[in-house]
Amino acid sequence: MIVRQEIKHLLQQPPVGELVTVMGWVRAWRGNRFMVLNDGSGPQTLQVVVDQDKFPEETVRQIGFHACVRVVGTLTASQGSGQSVEVMAEQLEILGANDLSSYPLQPKKQTMEYLRENAQFRMRTNTFSSVFRVRHGVAYAVNKYFHDRGYYYLHTPIITGNDAEGAGEMFRVSTLDPINPPRTEAGEIDYNQDFFGKATNLTVSGQLQAEIGALALGKVYTFGPTFRAENSNTSRHLAEFWMIEPEIAFADIDNDMNLAEDFVKYLINFCLEQYPDDLAYLDQRIQDSEKNMKTADRRPMGLVDTLKFVVANDFARVTYTEALDILMRSKAYKKGKFEFPLSWGTDLQAEHERYLVEKHFERPVIVRDYPKDIKAFYMRQNDDGKTVAAMDVLFPYIGEVIGGSQREEREDKLRQRMQEMDVHADELAWYLQLRTFGGCPHAGFGLGFERIVQFITGMGNIRDVIPFPRAPRLADF
Amino acid sequence: MIVRQEIKHLLQQPPVGELVTVMGWVRAWRGNRFMVLNDGSGPQTLQVVVDQDKFPEETVRQIGFHACVRVVGTLTASQGSGQSVEVMAEQLEILGANDLSSYPLQPKKQTMEYLRENAQFRMRTNTFSSVFRVRHGVAYAVNKYFHDRGYYYLHTPIITGNDAEGAGEMFRVSTLDPINPPRTEAGEIDYNQDFFGKATNLTVSGQLQAEIGALALGKVYTFGPTFRAENSNTSRHLAEFWMIEPEIAFADIDNDMNLAEDFVKYLINFCLEQYPDDLAYLDQRIQDSEKNMKTADRRPMGLVDTLKFVVANDFARVTYTEALDILMRSKAYKKGKFEFPLSWGTDLQAEHERYLVEKHFERPVIVRDYPKDIKAFYMRQNDDGKTVAAMDVLFPYIGEVIGGSQREEREDKLRQRMQEMDVHADELAWYLQLRTFGGCPHAGFGLGFERIVQFITGMGNIRDVIPFPRAPRLADF
Repeated sequence: MIVRQEIKHLLQQPPVGELVTVMGWVRAWRGNRFMVLNDGSGPQTLQVVVDQDKFPEETVRQIGFHACVRVVGTLTASQGSGQSVEVMAEQLEILGANDLSSYPLQPKKQTMEYLRENAQFRMRTNTFSSVFRVRHGVAYAVNKYFHDRGYYYLHTPIITGNDAEGAGEMFRVSTLDPINPPRTEAGEIDYNQDFFGKATNLTVSGQLQAEIGALALGKVYTFGPTFRAENSNTSRHLAEFWMIEPEIAFADIDNDMNLAEDFVKYLINFCLEQYPDDLAYLDQRIQDSEKNMKTADRRPMGLVDTLKFVVANDFARVTYTEALDILMRSKAYKKGKFEFPLSWGTDLQAEHERYLVEKHFERPVIVRDYPKDIKAFYMRQNDDGKTVAAMDVLFPYIGEVIGGSQREEREDKLRQRMQEMDVHADELAWYLQLRTFGGCPHAGFGLGFERIVQFITGMGNIRDVIPFPRAPRLADF
Repeated sequence: MIVRQEIKHLLQQPPVGELVTVMGWVRAWRGNRFMVLNDGSGPQTLQVVVDQDKFPEETVRQIGFHACVRVVGTLTASQGSGQSVEVMAEQLEILGANDLSSYPLQPKKQTMEYLRENAQFRMRTNTFSSVFRVRHGVAYAVNKYFHDRGYYYLHTPIITGNDAEGAGEMFRVSTLDPINPPRTEAGEIDYNQDFFGKATNLTVSGQLQAEIGALALGKVYTFGPTFRAENSNTSRHLAEFWMIEPEIAFADIDNDMNLAEDFVKYLINFCLEQYPDDLAYLDQRIQDSEKNMKTADRRPMGLVDTLKFVVANDFARVTYTEALDILMRSKAYKKGKFEFPLSWGTDLQAEHERYLVEKHFERPVIVRDYPKDIKAFYMRQNDDGKTVAAMDVLFPYIGEVIGGSQREEREDKLRQRMQEMDVHADELAWYLQLRTFGGCPHAGFGLGFERIVQFITGMGNIRDVIPFPRAPRLADF
């Protein structure tokens, strides 16, 4: 059995004077004598004093950047500045050498694109190790938030035979021979002979199935991968991403908005409390990168200050109609600064959302009561006959982070919308039955997990907050 | 905004004498006067006293089995037996009526198969609501266990271009036109024109990518869906299931076994502590179903006692060679009771595993050091040249619940095994590089999530512990 102490714990309550065993990767050397070690447990490094009397120079020379070592030594109060304790090495063992001449990473600044291509090593860098520790923190906070409040985690299916929601292009899942697939007499693919006996796709949302859970267990949430086969090669889109979808019985659109605001604030606050060192590093990283920018292009607030501001202030709440009014009265609109047209019934574009959040309200905004024709069939119709009880939460930098709605629980109204929007009722018979038999008012929303991780870490490209991004022509690892 | 009190909370600290608002589904009536209400928050029901002076008989008659209602009334100490408090209804509103004459469920015993086909309603039954609350509990305990111990949750990819692990048949993911796919000159499918620019499949395991995380962050775990396109229509297999895969740097096979034992005991203990009422119900359910069985066919212990026993006792630990010796000396073997042959080098079959667990050791068993030729290429070779540092954790009833190993960190030995086992080194260049550059001893395992949920809930068929099971010709909902 291998026994070692983790650096994060050693620095929390340093057992000064004791013999410790640490293992990790060399982040740097200070001169020939001070080795800076990190073991991934946190962003903290441990300084190891390597006395050249004890260890021959050729041994030490082999222990370069990102070599993996085992160190046994006494933890002592440090005489140098920058650290409170250090280890006086008594044993030094190379677990994994690292030949810098062929190692893909180098101890210098490298582009994000290059690090993405070398994702087998990018988590060893300060930036990405912090990003993925914080990503873990957000995920844990998601589960803790819902568990502590009596929600049940529901695993909705990844492979689905539902083709009905129409939230976007889907990936087909099949085991049929692609070269000579079985065909029907009409020449179509005979999916009856496929693994599931029908055509199947990767899920775009677990919401419809989550409603089944809510209408039995009361409050549920999903947290799983979802997929879009959209050919959008942007810094905001992934083909495979994780989504969180709470669904609540006995709830209306107001309950839904309150939950959404409370929930995202909790996630941000959890990270502020639990990952201050990682966030401080990521904050500094942004400030460094903005040094040579014009003031107008810099973030108005640092990362940590932005997070604290979001937690401390109420989100603005407006109806779609009010939002449209604000936009059409704006100088930006009157000066023709918006690319996309605005009129009642059109969807808000990213530029409009950013104006509302960053210029007008200067805080997160919840827009509600959207025109029914730009929203999904399952959203509850308001009494005005024109809008539905939908809501989007808009954030600075990243735009829409949450989209939700009260669900249409009235079977006749739901059927009518399905017919109008060409959703086949026979494929969703079970969904309609949830209204026929013992239904009730219910609501829910979807949070794009990578979007909120992007916001909390301040990373500019969504591909840098997921360990192994999937996008058009990108499925490495 | 809708305001209500949850039944679980009301019964924990009953605010006797106060006016409360509850919403839920009618589980039963006791006479015409006592309505039994459940809202999914827990297995507990709340008795509502419906006075016929206040509510006309025809209203009451409409509120049948699984109708959804809103009740406002005063919480009072109950005079009847079976409950400590009850609500004296002052308002009664039907949120969702339920016409029993067409409702798929009926207030009587129905087969598991039938309930599976009507999964839109099965979570409203006592059995399935308990199963899915406990499933949530196991999932939460997974995250809590690892978070509290400094592991980072890593999302490994669902869609993968890796075809190398060969853990089983895979599902193909594609957006190519299935009827007229683009072809190469040789007549093959031209996957270069597919969404990802290459052939892709659904993952069978996140382990290889998790090793990337462990060799940077130290300790990581995955918890996500995995897939097998195997045509096995059994009560033990799913085509889509959730798997947990911790991966740890600076760990050997002994660390791995200790973690596995501690981890599963924690999961079981968490459920015993947090879901006693659900487990008591499931325990009683098994006892009821075994009433008419022969003693030999019954479980030797009740469900809760079994769980307590597993937590309280050390797992037995033997090598594969010792296990084989035990089996070949057994009466069962000598009397020819095993269907499958036994000799050094053959894999243990379910019947052998069950013998070890249920007959010989009478407790969970960890078998280690399996012959290298029946295990995967990445497992670390032992010094005997014949075995690898692999381990399986075997449980009563469900068999293998965990499979793990120390990973081969020596690049030359790994390359040699890949060559011998026909794994293409060029497709896994990044995996080999983890050894070339700063590697270290590391280990991990995979826990089949549904298997452990099956064990804890005592459900006989794995399709009854996942909300929407996927299996050959089964992709409903």
